[in-house]
Amino acid sequence: MNAMPREPLQGELTVKTGTRTELVNVTRKVAEILPAAFSGICHVFVPHTTAAVTINENADPDVGHDILAEIGRLVPDHNPVFRHAEGNSAAHVKAALLGSGVSIPVARGKLMLGTWQGIFFCEFDGPRSRRIVVQLTPAPDS
Amino acid sequence: MNAMPREPLQGELTVKTGTRTELVNVTRKVAEILPAAFSGICHVFVPHTTAAVTINENADPDVGHDILAEIGRLVPDHNPVFRHAEGNSAAHVKAALLGSGVSIPVARGKLMLGTWQGIFFCEFDGPRSRRIVVQLTPAPDS
Amino acid sequence: MNAMPREPLQGELTVKTGTRTELVNVTRKVAEILPAAFSGICHVFVPHTTAAVTINENADPDVGHDILAEIGRLVPDHNPVFRHAEGNSAAHVKAALLGSGVSIPVARGKLMLGTWQGIFFCEFDGPRSRRIVVQLTPAPDS
Repeated sequence: MNAMPREPLQGELTVKTGTRTELVNVTRKVAEILPAAFSGICHVFVPHTTAAVTINENADPDVGHDILAEIGRLVPDHNPVFRHAEGNSAAHVKAALLGSGVSIPVARGKLMLGTWQGIFFCEFDGPRSRRIVVQLTPAPDS
Repeated sequence: MNAMPREPLQGELTVKTGTRTELVNVTRKVAEILPAAFSGICHVFVPHTTAAVTINENADPDVGHDILAEIGRLVPDHNPVFRHAEGNSAAHVKAALLGSGVSIPVARGKLMLGTWQGIFFCEFDGPRSRRIVVQLTPAPDS
Repeated sequence: MNAMPREPLQGELTVKTGTRTELVNVTRKVAEILPAAFSGICHVFVPHTTAAVTINENADPDVGHDILAEIGRLVPDHNPVFRHAEGNSAAHVKAALLGSGVSIPVARGKLMLGTWQGIFFCEFDGPRSRRIVVQLTPAPDS
């Protein structure tokens, strides 16, 4: 991070979701905005209240299906206890359970993800156009 | 973050909760401790095991109600499988599901939260006096 | 972090799990790799898709039992909706719910955990040999 001119440490991505609930693999898009010399933390942040971000299996898309199906079984759309007038309370609950951010260690421009890991944007109230903020915090190499 | 004298990058907030389970909006309190020139990550950390912190809707308080109600339905207080003698195992499980920290990107002193997002302290075993640790890690501007 | 020579800001731990689902207390191992002069964030990252990391009670092991039991009741191993051929979809869902990373504030080499908090590696598809990546991002003292 000491090279001049410095590259920006905050970036933004957009995601267009195509259905109500969906996992969108954003691993490559995140990886592409990492400066080659960067080491530290890459924080992927979702500035929405009915969407989330998670890290899970990159290889078999059935895993994403199973995660969405199981979260949907746990938190059904219709529930007599829900008061929120927009009718998307389940999406807010799912967003709270999965979380609005993930932090990934980075070494010299490379995400230190495990072999099977990818970064997934989680749509719970689509289809919509969504944003992702990526914030890098450097940990200088020795 | 280069101005002299440097402002502290770790702060602490206190929250008094008034009931058993409750979401307390701490967005303003967190925002107030950000130095105007700070860019990077603001990490909000809860040093308790029966409380959590989450980011969700700031506008309609019914959303907070629905989140607490649904988490309460999923993880009921009484469960024959629970062994912990204090009787608050459900609060520990809820804390594990929502998590003890959230990280928010900050640009020049401003939390990069989405339009509808706020930061909520989640009380699951109140009423109590609680602490929140705020840690800033800088990402120098170019 | 200004002392010369600099100590490395990224480390790795290994954990051997002994059973299918298990919480392993890694607080001491994480604490041991913190340089004495370090202040900032310690991010504990699990590069696996059927394991997670959480912060919860360090004192009574019954709490860990109750968390695993309740998560196991919520997300049972067998579910007609699961498609993933490996048969470990429940482990992937649990990993998504608890999350792949935790961030802990550090002040001069000391984790700012609460009195009752510890850091737990969460095995959901063991027994296996697992890795943990620890990434430090500095927040210089004033």
